[in-house]
Amino acid sequence: MAKKIERIGIMTGGGDCPGLNAVIRAVVLKAHARGWKVMGLEDATAGLIDLDYRSPHGNRWLEPDDVQDILVRGGTILGTSNRSDPFHFVVEENGEKKEVDVSDTVVENFKKLELDALISVGGDGSMKIAQKLMDKGIPVVGVPKTIDQDLGATDYTFGFNTAVQACTDAIDRLQDTAASHDRVMFLEVMGRNAGWIALASAIAGGAHICVIPEIPYRPQAIVDAIKRRLSKGRPFAIAVVAEGAKPAEGDQSFAGPRELGAMPKLFGAAYKLAAQIEPHLDLDCRVTVLGHIQRGGSPTQFDRILGTRFGAAAVDAVAEGKFGQMVALRTPEIVTVPISEAIANERNVDPNGQLVQAARDTGISFGDR
Amino acid sequence: MAKKIERIGIMTGGGDCPGLNAVIRAVVLKAHARGWKVMGLEDATAGLIDLDYRSPHGNRWLEPDDVQDILVRGGTILGTSNRSDPFHFVVEENGEKKEVDVSDTVVENFKKLELDALISVGGDGSMKIAQKLMDKGIPVVGVPKTIDQDLGATDYTFGFNTAVQACTDAIDRLQDTAASHDRVMFLEVMGRNAGWIALASAIAGGAHICVIPEIPYRPQAIVDAIKRRLSKGRPFAIAVVAEGAKPAEGDQSFAGPRELGAMPKLFGAAYKLAAQIEPHLDLDCRVTVLGHIQRGGSPTQFDRILGTRFGAAAVDAVAEGKFGQMVALRTPEIVTVPISEAIANERNVDPNGQLVQAARDTGISFGDR
Amino acid sequence: MAKKIERIGIMTGGGDCPGLNAVIRAVVLKAHARGWKVMGLEDATAGLIDLDYRSPHGNRWLEPDDVQDILVRGGTILGTSNRSDPFHFVVEENGEKKEVDVSDTVVENFKKLELDALISVGGDGSMKIAQKLMDKGIPVVGVPKTIDQDLGATDYTFGFNTAVQACTDAIDRLQDTAASHDRVMFLEVMGRNAGWIALASAIAGGAHICVIPEIPYRPQAIVDAIKRRLSKGRPFAIAVVAEGAKPAEGDQSFAGPRELGAMPKLFGAAYKLAAQIEPHLDLDCRVTVLGHIQRGGSPTQFDRILGTRFGAAAVDAVAEGKFGQMVALRTPEIVTVPISEAIANERNVDPNGQLVQAARDTGISFGDR
Amino acid sequence: MAKKIERIGIMTGGGDCPGLNAVIRAVVLKAHARGWKVMGLEDATAGLIDLDYRSPHGNRWLEPDDVQDILVRGGTILGTSNRSDPFHFVVEENGEKKEVDVSDTVVENFKKLELDALISVGGDGSMKIAQKLMDKGIPVVGVPKTIDQDLGATDYTFGFNTAVQACTDAIDRLQDTAASHDRVMFLEVMGRNAGWIALASAIAGGAHICVIPEIPYRPQAIVDAIKRRLSKGRPFAIAVVAEGAKPAEGDQSFAGPRELGAMPKLFGAAYKLAAQIEPHLDLDCRVTVLGHIQRGGSPTQFDRILGTRFGAAAVDAVAEGKFGQMVALRTPEIVTVPISEAIANERNVDPNGQLVQAARDTGISFGDR
Repeated sequence: MAKKIERIGIMTGGGDCPGLNAVIRAVVLKAHARGWKVMGLEDATAGLIDLDYRSPHGNRWLEPDDVQDILVRGGTILGTSNRSDPFHFVVEENGEKKEVDVSDTVVENFKKLELDALISVGGDGSMKIAQKLMDKGIPVVGVPKTIDQDLGATDYTFGFNTAVQACTDAIDRLQDTAASHDRVMFLEVMGRNAGWIALASAIAGGAHICVIPEIPYRPQAIVDAIKRRLSKGRPFAIAVVAEGAKPAEGDQSFAGPRELGAMPKLFGAAYKLAAQIEPHLDLDCRVTVLGHIQRGGSPTQFDRILGTRFGAAAVDAVAEGKFGQMVALRTPEIVTVPISEAIANERNVDPNGQLVQAARDTGISFGDR
Repeated sequence: MAKKIERIGIMTGGGDCPGLNAVIRAVVLKAHARGWKVMGLEDATAGLIDLDYRSPHGNRWLEPDDVQDILVRGGTILGTSNRSDPFHFVVEENGEKKEVDVSDTVVENFKKLELDALISVGGDGSMKIAQKLMDKGIPVVGVPKTIDQDLGATDYTFGFNTAVQACTDAIDRLQDTAASHDRVMFLEVMGRNAGWIALASAIAGGAHICVIPEIPYRPQAIVDAIKRRLSKGRPFAIAVVAEGAKPAEGDQSFAGPRELGAMPKLFGAAYKLAAQIEPHLDLDCRVTVLGHIQRGGSPTQFDRILGTRFGAAAVDAVAEGKFGQMVALRTPEIVTVPISEAIANERNVDPNGQLVQAARDTGISFGDR
Repeated sequence: MAKKIERIGIMTGGGDCPGLNAVIRAVVLKAHARGWKVMGLEDATAGLIDLDYRSPHGNRWLEPDDVQDILVRGGTILGTSNRSDPFHFVVEENGEKKEVDVSDTVVENFKKLELDALISVGGDGSMKIAQKLMDKGIPVVGVPKTIDQDLGATDYTFGFNTAVQACTDAIDRLQDTAASHDRVMFLEVMGRNAGWIALASAIAGGAHICVIPEIPYRPQAIVDAIKRRLSKGRPFAIAVVAEGAKPAEGDQSFAGPRELGAMPKLFGAAYKLAAQIEPHLDLDCRVTVLGHIQRGGSPTQFDRILGTRFGAAAVDAVAEGKFGQMVALRTPEIVTVPISEAIANERNVDPNGQLVQAARDTGISFGDR
Repeated sequence: MAKKIERIGIMTGGGDCPGLNAVIRAVVLKAHARGWKVMGLEDATAGLIDLDYRSPHGNRWLEPDDVQDILVRGGTILGTSNRSDPFHFVVEENGEKKEVDVSDTVVENFKKLELDALISVGGDGSMKIAQKLMDKGIPVVGVPKTIDQDLGATDYTFGFNTAVQACTDAIDRLQDTAASHDRVMFLEVMGRNAGWIALASAIAGGAHICVIPEIPYRPQAIVDAIKRRLSKGRPFAIAVVAEGAKPAEGDQSFAGPRELGAMPKLFGAAYKLAAQIEPHLDLDCRVTVLGHIQRGGSPTQFDRILGTRFGAAAVDAVAEGKFGQMVALRTPEIVTVPISEAIANERNVDPNGQLVQAARDTGISFGDR
């Protein structure tokens, strides 16, 4: 029988995602309807590592009035952080940085706050931390968050839909100007290991080229694809480039300009590809890097609903004592799955799957043939 | 073994839906890649009932160039019609309207055009016609289309996502002005029999009241919900009203103003509800009717991808001789199901389901309690 | 020499407008930079009539942190009211409503709050009140606000740009579905006395018919315009209807259906026009009423900039002791004009002006010929 | 007395701009209403230099049906080009590129097409060419086009409003994620010589830093501005960077990282600034380059109306024989001004003007103090 719940904490970790505030709002509203109190912990575990942490707000009790208007807002009102793993916490001592384990402090502070359970919203990294905090006695329920949609345990995660919409809007805009100017437009989008955002927005935007981490590309194949378009009287192209896209190993078809070697890490896959391709075409090449525009903005209705459902389901899971579980979408139902299982199961684009095939069917080249 | 395919026809029937052009585009591009020709038939079966029909274009062969730019466009480049059931075709003779069966003409014209198969994109009504044409010897593959999302055979249909986004955008806008002015805003959205659009947009927009056909409402309960908000210092409310929303049978709590009896059919559920509620509140009531704004507009990325996948899958189904089948989404795969089965299985909002519960959890009243 | 300013008040009156929060933000930020304090007064003069007034917030000092994030938000964080004219204030006594003059209380409360000046953001009505408060000794600077753009003293007022964009977006959506379905779509937009919103959005959206208060229409002329389109193979039309549109006096061309007489006041110009027109056409007619969607939503960049400039200029005017003046845009400069002059000078659409001519040039019928 | 007009040509030159299609549409509709024919010339003067030029369409007569739906579309249906100055036309001969004067051919082809006048829509460069063609006997009317808004002769040019809206939308999105993550976001926008886009979108988006060509920046001043924010508990910032922004001459406050010297020209002002600033802050820096997203997309209502009015006024100017004139907006009227005058008068941001002051008033640092 589950312990009686009266006070819970909620934190958001990892990169921010449109829909995080929908989760927070649903947790607060539903918990309050049950008579619980909800403490918002700031900047992921930072608020538990140091109870006096402020950047800028600090931990605080969240009332329904605090969350009424946040559904439409991107980001997270609790802040987030990529640098607050309590098991590998970086501190500076005598001018040197070193890692320490502050997880005991986290457990202690959790008790000081008299919290009965913790809802942790986050990605892979956050879920691994959640699992380890669970092992140390903190009752945790997980809510999955990855804008890259690369978690096998759930059909969708919130944020992905909004990100793909932002990329698709960008492609729509580039289509007009590419066609007017006889240009090749390279659009770099997120996706270090998984190409879902690039693939989905390329299909939705009617792009002509799409390069993703799962399908290594050959620059020559991309030049060929553009030339085939030229020969059909279409002297322009849109190429969507996942930031993690890589040329096929051993491909020597293009050395690229000399400067490439000197390119600071700052410059991503799209600039590199454009620099490789441009000398072989009689068309101007232009690069757009969407960057964090993909992470921001008001969430789409899809992500607001998914976030709301995840938040409500997480409260149910806490009430039912389902600790160590993570909520997940198995269309059309929300279910719970063990956190440990969930994080073991990454999802990548299947180069032979239906979605890649649908992309090819509408004329998208992946630069592999 | 399936007959060799060389020429296929495609038509779109019923109310238009954002995403129809994505289906048409994918069919044309994929069919051309296979070496087939694709004839676009105008205004649903109208183009097959009369080969000379023009409104304004007439039937025409669709080339890849004809469909390159249509992905971003709402509506359907083929036109559509609700008045072209060949089994109950309305003709005017001597000033009188009567129904005739012109299905033999349709079969004859299909042969005249030397088409090998037909892809019919449409709703319930169109699928029933497709099934009957199939029985008369026309090889048909179906693509489901219902903006109301009320088809049990498929997880999603295209158009629904765009419609809910349009309604959510409208609610976002009304929130600002409702709060500034101490008002109750009624937003009427589509949904004659199924309340999915109202339910989804109420959750996504953070509405306060939602009335849908599946949950009969009592005006008194709605007044009470608004007064509860008032008593908490929130002197405004947003109510989302499905056009098919109905008061609970026998509910006599409100007679409503006398004019209601005289109200022309033109005025829908939101006006009626507002007229019932307003006299019992000390807040201004305002009505917005979104109407066909929900059907138009550039499709969201979700609907463009779903439409593209349905189109590509329909061409596969034709190639594989899967006639009498309809494509459907079983997340994350596209499958085929018998048309006959699909149309037998309507999907309504479950008043006790997870989605209604998530709505209640975030403070939405359905006017039933 | 102007009195030393230390504390000012700001209020927003009349219907809300996208851009009001930009004004408030600029006033607070600029005033704070000068070392002043700014009190936000709630619901127009309501906060001055009764210092204990709460709906829901009450008067409060506004700090820079309170306004940092409001630039993107529609509505007004101060609330507004149409019922708080202190010279004609409605009170209920023994169940009866009567008007009283509470302007002395306003002056008294203004002194109690130790305010040195008042910035009043509002329309015609608010400016008249401001002028009268000025005459009673309150130093007022005005900021014009009318979504209808009907003030001759300033090239633009904020809110208009956002409203026209909302209407144009709606027309864009209706275009797709009107063309797909052979329909006449009526879109009712704001504009009781001035047709600027209807005119601008009709041009921007490529509508086919536009009826505005300044050009009385004849239903027959509208039917003719639609039939001319039909005869050219365009069996659909979009009609933009200002809420104040009226048929030409004495026009008897259409009696309209009998129900029209019984139509509650609730139903506006678009429904009436549609009911008059539909019987004379072989096309479905549909009505969309945008309502307060036009007032809400995040302001366009144009309105945010104009609001910001108005707010900054109002602080300058206070600093320079320019009381009784109103800020105004004379492109590209912000100037000040006497409030008394400004409110005397309404601006209506000139039926023979360039803008109407440009509309006619692109095929828009005003139903007058 | 002006020559009788029967056939006119229209071309669009220079970078594309949202609103170009509105101009083309208005010209075609209004000219046809007068009984004229309108030839669309492809890719600026390319279509006049070689009558057989195709990329992909070639010159063609434009009918009302060709332009009905283009109002909502970005780009230009006529194509454009930066490489078609007939007075300095680049040809390749024996593998070498050289410039030739083909203006006589242009005059000859103009006569061959039996055109009576030419409407040239373009920027600075196009207007200079127009003036020179005028001198050789081609009757030209100009329509100004510059997305940078840097033409003194007209209050606004179309495209600018849409571009600023795109940048403002981007800033809105970055605000959420910057605040959630304690980051400095650099957004590079257009503006090589004039900073209007950066300035306007910085005000509208509530950015914290804005660097423009007209106000040379000192990196140290930007670091200081960010640190002032940090000290007030706001550990994040948005910096809008015009592509032509430059550090103050002789400023040695920052050498920047060594790689900067090796940076290919491809990388613009924002990357350079970020690389200079990041080492001096304890905040992550991220760069977004909007690129051609600013040029594409459906034009705002403002730009559609301005384009429509310019197009209509250009036809009037042709009808009245006002050759050598350019249409221009002097709010609220459209007027004509001599092309020669117009191109002599560039407009830059005035560092001491109202708009820069309004930006400073709302807390924007220009990095100059």
